[in-house]
Amino acid sequence: MKQERMAPFLTDGRSMLLAYDQGLEHGPSADFNDRNIDPATIMETASKGKFNGVVFQKGVAERYYDGKIPLIVKLNGKTSLPKGEPISKQECSVEQAMSLGAKGVGYTIYLGSGFEAEMLSEFGRIQEDAHKRGLPAIAWIYPRGSAVQNDTSKEIVAYAARAGLELGADAVKIKYTGDPTTFSWAVRAAAGVKVFMSGGPKAPTDEDFLTQVRGVMEAGATGLAVGRNVWQNDDPLRMAERLRRIIFEETKGKSRQSK
Amino acid sequence: MKQERMAPFLTDGRSMLLAYDQGLEHGPSADFNDRNIDPATIMETASKGKFNGVVFQKGVAERYYDGKIPLIVKLNGKTSLPKGEPISKQECSVEQAMSLGAKGVGYTIYLGSGFEAEMLSEFGRIQEDAHKRGLPAIAWIYPRGSAVQNDTSKEIVAYAARAGLELGADAVKIKYTGDPTTFSWAVRAAAGVKVFMSGGPKAPTDEDFLTQVRGVMEAGATGLAVGRNVWQNDDPLRMAERLRRIIFEETKGKSRQSK
Amino acid sequence: MKQERMAPFLTDGRSMLLAYDQGLEHGPSADFNDRNIDPATIMETASKGKFNGVVFQKGVAERYYDGKIPLIVKLNGKTSLPKGEPISKQECSVEQAMSLGAKGVGYTIYLGSGFEAEMLSEFGRIQEDAHKRGLPAIAWIYPRGSAVQNDTSKEIVAYAARAGLELGADAVKIKYTGDPTTFSWAVRAAAGVKVFMSGGPKAPTDEDFLTQVRGVMEAGATGLAVGRNVWQNDDPLRMAERLRRIIFEETKGKSRQSK
Amino acid sequence: MKQERMAPFLTDGRSMLLAYDQGLEHGPSADFNDRNIDPATIMETASKGKFNGVVFQKGVAERYYDGKIPLIVKLNGKTSLPKGEPISKQECSVEQAMSLGAKGVGYTIYLGSGFEAEMLSEFGRIQEDAHKRGLPAIAWIYPRGSAVQNDTSKEIVAYAARAGLELGADAVKIKYTGDPTTFSWAVRAAAGVKVFMSGGPKAPTDEDFLTQVRGVMEAGATGLAVGRNVWQNDDPLRMAERLRRIIFEETKGKSRQSK
Amino acid sequence: MKQERMAPFLTDGRSMLLAYDQGLEHGPSADFNDRNIDPATIMETASKGKFNGVVFQKGVAERYYDGKIPLIVKLNGKTSLPKGEPISKQECSVEQAMSLGAKGVGYTIYLGSGFEAEMLSEFGRIQEDAHKRGLPAIAWIYPRGSAVQNDTSKEIVAYAARAGLELGADAVKIKYTGDPTTFSWAVRAAAGVKVFMSGGPKAPTDEDFLTQVRGVMEAGATGLAVGRNVWQNDDPLRMAERLRRIIFEETKGKSRQSK
Repeated sequence: MKQERMAPFLTDGRSMLLAYDQGLEHGPSADFNDRNIDPATIMETASKGKFNGVVFQKGVAERYYDGKIPLIVKLNGKTSLPKGEPISKQECSVEQAMSLGAKGVGYTIYLGSGFEAEMLSEFGRIQEDAHKRGLPAIAWIYPRGSAVQNDTSKEIVAYAARAGLELGADAVKIKYTGDPTTFSWAVRAAAGVKVFMSGGPKAPTDEDFLTQVRGVMEAGATGLAVGRNVWQNDDPLRMAERLRRIIFEETKGKSRQSK
Repeated sequence: MKQERMAPFLTDGRSMLLAYDQGLEHGPSADFNDRNIDPATIMETASKGKFNGVVFQKGVAERYYDGKIPLIVKLNGKTSLPKGEPISKQECSVEQAMSLGAKGVGYTIYLGSGFEAEMLSEFGRIQEDAHKRGLPAIAWIYPRGSAVQNDTSKEIVAYAARAGLELGADAVKIKYTGDPTTFSWAVRAAAGVKVFMSGGPKAPTDEDFLTQVRGVMEAGATGLAVGRNVWQNDDPLRMAERLRRIIFEETKGKSRQSK
Repeated sequence: MKQERMAPFLTDGRSMLLAYDQGLEHGPSADFNDRNIDPATIMETASKGKFNGVVFQKGVAERYYDGKIPLIVKLNGKTSLPKGEPISKQECSVEQAMSLGAKGVGYTIYLGSGFEAEMLSEFGRIQEDAHKRGLPAIAWIYPRGSAVQNDTSKEIVAYAARAGLELGADAVKIKYTGDPTTFSWAVRAAAGVKVFMSGGPKAPTDEDFLTQVRGVMEAGATGLAVGRNVWQNDDPLRMAERLRRIIFEETKGKSRQSK
Repeated sequence: MKQERMAPFLTDGRSMLLAYDQGLEHGPSADFNDRNIDPATIMETASKGKFNGVVFQKGVAERYYDGKIPLIVKLNGKTSLPKGEPISKQECSVEQAMSLGAKGVGYTIYLGSGFEAEMLSEFGRIQEDAHKRGLPAIAWIYPRGSAVQNDTSKEIVAYAARAGLELGADAVKIKYTGDPTTFSWAVRAAAGVKVFMSGGPKAPTDEDFLTQVRGVMEAGATGLAVGRNVWQNDDPLRMAERLRRIIFEETKGKSRQSK
Repeated sequence: MKQERMAPFLTDGRSMLLAYDQGLEHGPSADFNDRNIDPATIMETASKGKFNGVVFQKGVAERYYDGKIPLIVKLNGKTSLPKGEPISKQECSVEQAMSLGAKGVGYTIYLGSGFEAEMLSEFGRIQEDAHKRGLPAIAWIYPRGSAVQNDTSKEIVAYAARAGLELGADAVKIKYTGDPTTFSWAVRAAAGVKVFMSGGPKAPTDEDFLTQVRGVMEAGATGLAVGRNVWQNDDPLRMAERLRRIIFEETKGKSRQSK
């Protein structure tokens, strides 16, 4: 039976991660203001907000990771600039991530891209390497590219979740389908792989976002990897507190999955 | 003379394998229902149904393989999403497969694809690696891509079988041509390589499928690697029982090949 | 001075090889009948027909090579299915070929292909590896692709021969130009590299083929790597006998080259 | 906390580097005259002009580097000739750079290029290698290619700076936005990574260029990597002197950043 | 300061090399007759003609190099057949070249090709490998491809020379611009890298070619790498004698460069 490599990031089997690689993925002008452009404020939010982990690229990790909560280093990344089929390649080794203090590694796969095979194959090597070193390999799985029409349909989100299972990911970060019923199909498809909702762009209101999170947890997810909906919030720590309450208290025992 | 590396998967030279990598290849919504989306039910079907082996991707193997029957780990895989010439690359090493308990490894080659050379070459390295470790290398050989018109013609199915022989596969999984006479040409082309019919999508009726299996065995095949026609069946164990009877009893001694 | 690595395949500096990789290159239905689809019959023809060597892909070698005559393992291969510029990549290592009993290795280069550089480079590595292990590296050199109009002109056949010399091949297998005068230019271009005529598809009559062989030997070639013109013949051993007579007796001392 | 690998190139946290790889990037006829085509004159300018470091390709470093000031070896480079999406690949290893005396290595990334992933990935390996050897990895980050419209906008320059941070660069060399206010956003995006303005083509007048430098330093940059604006100047040492005064004296304490 | 790795190929700092890789680059029918198709005649011309070195591909070197004068092995090569952007990849290792007796290695870079980055990068690895083993790395630099209009303009020839310097070549082989004044700009651009004129196709008359050579030497070049203008000559040894006189006597002390 599989050992639970995600344990460092779990509280009673649930988790809330703070993601902060948007500077590379979207660019600072798309997502940051004068406050949250500074990684130190995010590191502080992560620990004061009692997140189960923080997600950085290696450069941010080296300069700003303070060791107070567990670290996940994203091993690949791309900018939003290039056109054409999406491809993101490894730019940090598992070994280097560990030397920066990582307790887990992340990797993005653009399912359906014309370069899908490159990413599946690279993730395969990373997963093996990480497991040999005792680290969980977390897959950000985003169906994208000219072959993908709707990346939040029930079918496509479940496909992403299932791909994570098949490829040996310890956890997957996927988009929300929009309602707990359809999302619970994705959780079932993951078949034991920890499912994290990808927070996505800031929701119109806090309540909108919290409703999503409630739905995700009721659907049986493990938790949330959130970025903009926390650190773009006027009061990130209050938002973190509200999320914690939903994830660790409110929805406990209400999941549709018999986990 | 060649040693029989397929021995762990054979009963009197015949075999019945249960395949379950459709979650990656087709997606959970295409093939699964609430029951068979759960790998544990398939593992149970595989052992209770007395299959000679079960085929998983590494992630499913790590979480659900229980050691009761021999394991084959598929080393490559792709989703059904990308357009263009098909390509599936290695995402699990032979070494890792062994560490998960595999007694054999599988690899898909899309013969005729614009990326054929990549897959022939990668399978070549895998086959050498597997043989050094004493494991059989099983080739899923599917002619596909813009250059392939009819992937179940006598000629193309025999080509797939023959490619398996030439490349040093210990067994090939190929599609059925539709009748025993034409399929026996594929078996002859394989020239000693164990031939498994690929079960394919669920047949309209059980009898339709059983007729295919009878034809395949009469044509001299080693057996069947079946998935959907068993685990999408309302009574998978009964279907398994009927298949066993055909493969190991009914068709015994009735093959057209002088093996 | 160069050592003669081809010695295991030579009788008084001449040679007659039996090639049998057409199952991969053309498919069984294009070239085989019920008899010659069986590699065992070819192995028997090769030894009873007193060939100087037999050419197999690794899979056939492992199952059917009996050690009675020297073995050449083809290290790359492709099917006839894909469209576009031809590319054939290594799927057997020199080390693996040796472990199967090979005394020489073969590799196909499609000169003029858009992938020419890939194959020249890969052959370069193989040749170095083979020479370190004391094995000859034999180049099948076939100008092909959209840039090649006529692959049997005097100029293009001589170019193939010369490329073999420059790249360090111990022998080249090239097509016949159609007459001894033009083919002797290719032999001169090879400048000491052993030249084998590629037998090609079955000639209309036996005499047609034997005339070709006479022309090739008179042009100064080392011999012939023949497949279909022997094993598609109604009496392969008689054809082999007739070829031997031409190669080792009739044309002896009649070559236009002062070798 | 991150160690300051850039220390060898800093004076009180500020720096002025002399770059001289234009012979490869633009060609000698585009940028050089009879004087500055000679690398010895540039080496002399670099040391007499009291630069904090000089940037050479490996070939120039081997022949002309005299050890008087610290050396940065550029590890990749391209010519201006090829059309299509820009790509520049490693042609010098970190190990070789060190053997030539380098105290730092540089690498160009064309953000937004269709080959962005290749360069991000290669820089990732170089950065890890350099850090293991104790050397800073300096990223020349130039958004370029068909997807990039305006490579000096506030947004795109800040994106370049931020990518340097995320990827673990110790310093970035980026273009100037044209005014201190917008450039200070890039400096904030770099979040501690040393920011160097790329000097670019010779400005219309010395004053124009000095105004740029003043703006850059006021925006909080570390300094300047200048080439043509010094060694195309009629009096390079006088220009160097004026730059030093701005960087190390005039703008001291006037930065908008609270560093 | 750089050691002079070219010393084995120099007489008083000047040099005359005999090149013979045209059999691969252009094909035997384009360049050879019954005499010069035989590498033995070229080896004899090289030593009797007192050349400073002879340039062979590995296959010719293994069979025909006699050790009487120093050897350069070309490590890459292509045929003239493929269309599209030019690419030539390594097919001989530095180690293998040494084992054949090489005292230097050559590599062709098609500057401006869509595959420029591949060749710059591969040359970079070869140069490092060669230098570790104490061998000079000589770059044949030919601007070519759809982006290059005129490959003998002053600007483009100087660019080729400069690229050789930047990339760490010990010598460059470049085309002649047509007159000493413009060629001297290329020599200055090379900045100490030994410059060899590429002989090119046979000139209309001997005098035409000798005039070119005089111009090249007056421009400050190190010498000449000549092929067709010597071995296609009716009296190769007389031509060699005339070249020696120009290179080592006539033009001595008349160079425009203060070397």
